Amino acid sequence: MGLGTVGSGVSKILAHKKDHLEKVAGRPIELRGILVRDTGKKREHQPPKDLITNNADEILANPEIDIIVEVMGGQKSAFSYIMKSISLGKHVVTANKEVMARFGTDIMDAAHNNGVKVMFEASVCAGTPIISPLSNDLVTNNISKIHGIINGTTNYILTRMSQDSMSFEEALSEAQRLGFAESEPANDIEGTDAAYKLAILSTLAFKTRVMDSDVYTEGISGLNPNDFIYAEDLGYRIKLLSIAAKHNSRIQMRVHPALVPTNAMIANVNGVLNAVEIQTDLAGRILFHGQGAGSLTTTSAVISDIVAIARSRSDRKYEVDFRLDASTDIEDIHSLNTKYYLRLIVNDMPGVLAQITRILGELKISIASIIQKAAYQTNHSAEIVIMTHESNEQSMQTAVKLINDLETVHQIGSMIRVEDFSTDNS
Amino acid sequence: MGLGTVGSGVSKILAHKKDHLEKVAGRPIELRGILVRDTGKKREHQPPKDLITNNADEILANPEIDIIVEVMGGQKSAFSYIMKSISLGKHVVTANKEVMARFGTDIMDAAHNNGVKVMFEASVCAGTPIISPLSNDLVTNNISKIHGIINGTTNYILTRMSQDSMSFEEALSEAQRLGFAESEPANDIEGTDAAYKLAILSTLAFKTRVMDSDVYTEGISGLNPNDFIYAEDLGYRIKLLSIAAKHNSRIQMRVHPALVPTNAMIANVNGVLNAVEIQTDLAGRILFHGQGAGSLTTTSAVISDIVAIARSRSDRKYEVDFRLDASTDIEDIHSLNTKYYLRLIVNDMPGVLAQITRILGELKISIASIIQKAAYQTNHSAEIVIMTHESNEQSMQTAVKLINDLETVHQIGSMIRVEDFSTDNS
Repeated sequence: MGLGTVGSGVSKILAHKKDHLEKVAGRPIELRGILVRDTGKKREHQPPKDLITNNADEILANPEIDIIVEVMGGQKSAFSYIMKSISLGKHVVTANKEVMARFGTDIMDAAHNNGVKVMFEASVCAGTPIISPLSNDLVTNNISKIHGIINGTTNYILTRMSQDSMSFEEALSEAQRLGFAESEPANDIEGTDAAYKLAILSTLAFKTRVMDSDVYTEGISGLNPNDFIYAEDLGYRIKLLSIAAKHNSRIQMRVHPALVPTNAMIANVNGVLNAVEIQTDLAGRILFHGQGAGSLTTTSAVISDIVAIARSRSDRKYEVDFRLDASTDIEDIHSLNTKYYLRLIVNDMPGVLAQITRILGELKISIASIIQKAAYQTNHSAEIVIMTHESNEQSMQTAVKLINDLETVHQIGSMIRVEDFSTDNS
Repeated sequence: MGLGTVGSGVSKILAHKKDHLEKVAGRPIELRGILVRDTGKKREHQPPKDLITNNADEILANPEIDIIVEVMGGQKSAFSYIMKSISLGKHVVTANKEVMARFGTDIMDAAHNNGVKVMFEASVCAGTPIISPLSNDLVTNNISKIHGIINGTTNYILTRMSQDSMSFEEALSEAQRLGFAESEPANDIEGTDAAYKLAILSTLAFKTRVMDSDVYTEGISGLNPNDFIYAEDLGYRIKLLSIAAKHNSRIQMRVHPALVPTNAMIANVNGVLNAVEIQTDLAGRILFHGQGAGSLTTTSAVISDIVAIARSRSDRKYEVDFRLDASTDIEDIHSLNTKYYLRLIVNDMPGVLAQITRILGELKISIASIIQKAAYQTNHSAEIVIMTHESNEQSMQTAVKLINDLETVHQIGSMIRVEDFSTDNS
């Protein structure tokens, strides 16, 4: 139900990854119907026409449909379709934080009474796992506190205000230009979106019915560029934090700008990224960090929930998959290409560098920088550090051997590989 | 099987959290036998005597036992007990990274053929979820790369070498004194332990049989304090990284010290903490950060695996739990106690500060620092920043109102709460 940003992603990936999903779910997963408002609308992603309908009952009444995926957003019709699906014995996967924050308990009660599952990993932090770790992996623990950055729009604005001394208005309009903020930004910048998500996490963590209206909420529009400068001077950054803490039998929930120490992990979460830290009695403090919004990452969460439901109905429920389906070669370290840091102790005399750079040059190892670090009078030696551009490991190992054999070189201090993540997809 | 650090934790928490575990698992979880080498040994944690045996067959032959928990460590007998349990139709939960890295595929094949589950969340990063997110939450994704800090001992040593210019030997002996390193530290400092864990993660991510011996491994004992200083100058920190990447049909796996950019999240993982980043095609890059070793956190993972197996055999399999079992009050924001940052624009004239500090003093808000930030000639105003000690929110809001009413105060620039996490349990 819904063929917007998320719905299109789900429809596309269900088709693209059909074989993969059948393998991991233990059964085929088929898209059987798509609810849209306007069946005639031109779309970038165009699923098969015969799947599309503007009549919800056609989908709800189809006995062959086991799972309803609600990705329409909004409140009223989404909630009524979810409840109707449950009453008809259909499982539900939803990405709807508003509905889950306001009516989550009613929905889960109905699901329990009707023996169906309702899953909503996508409603908080999109594809970054947080609902499932809270519900499964950390189930042994008592949770004392959850805090985090769970709205990407405001984190983008705060990052720009902090790193580039922009005003709130400048940063907001840039975020709007880049598609990170909506033209009606109130929901994000006033903290409402974060309050929905915090209400969901609190209900899960503390098993207490809370609503978004129980969350004290303050937005970021009042912040001034000077605050960021002064905060940095004092050793802090400013983040829109969402915090839920349990004090004995009372829960405190709040969303507001906060000063956080510069060296805290959460202070280093930048741009549109999200992070949530969960404090537990046994497993300590655990931080989850990743994208919190976007079509594909939300699709990842929605489909993983679908797979979980499919697995639970087959023999493969909750099974860690260690079985092999790829014949893959192990790459030798010699074929690695990376940058290198090389520290050498050499004779402090002319001509030594020429010998070293000749060896590197002949092996096609290109030098990014050479710095002489220290000279030792006692034994006329000097310490130099060489940073290379991306080079081949085998060539580098050969070079190190040849350099070590030079009479003018006392010692290879260190050869350390550099991982600057610059070639990583991001 | 096993009553060492982890086994004692599991035995203790199964007793302490009996009711909680029965609720979340949907059935009681009972400890029915404990295998030890020496039944007469005095132990800090002493479970009921009649549970303890030194005869493995007593446990294996007991038809009432559904799940074997293997927390003995080591290779040979652990592996044979795991295989025997599987052949007898018992589920297995293990924390044994060595066995899973070397024989994981055989074990999972046997489990599949015998219709039982083998779970091993505790084998990598203890209670910080990583096996389950890879197997369940991220199941829709193709994984292209995993990298991280998965050995706490070496990360502690590297942190001390970096932050306090210690030599490797000094840092190692401190780690040994504090119990973070063993008296025979080779397994950690040579990278062997990390290679076990990386082999497990690679098998899960790439569905290819890999062993610890397939991982190129280099330890940290050759690093020199100068390397940390020079690296910092160049904008890097030194970490023992474990990296597994897929290039088309080839997998590259390596554990070695690496320079990582200072501003990368992974560069800011300090002390005994662990972090793993997973790169996916849909959900982007996701980082998991937390404790990687310790009795209670490992216990958290072991028991969550037990609960997962118990749930899969009941009606509650894979169910997100939103049902309420606590009557908890919501705390008003007024009862919050925290530190505050206050920015004011005031008349640049004597006596103003006295008025402000009097208001704060009367409301029992204690000042940590006052800094005059800027003076504006044009309108004779000055900007001042006040940091308070921990104070009450209601008092603070009253203070802000009273300060705002002062004729000498032009404007309350900002009032931002400070979260320095100093009161958090950690």
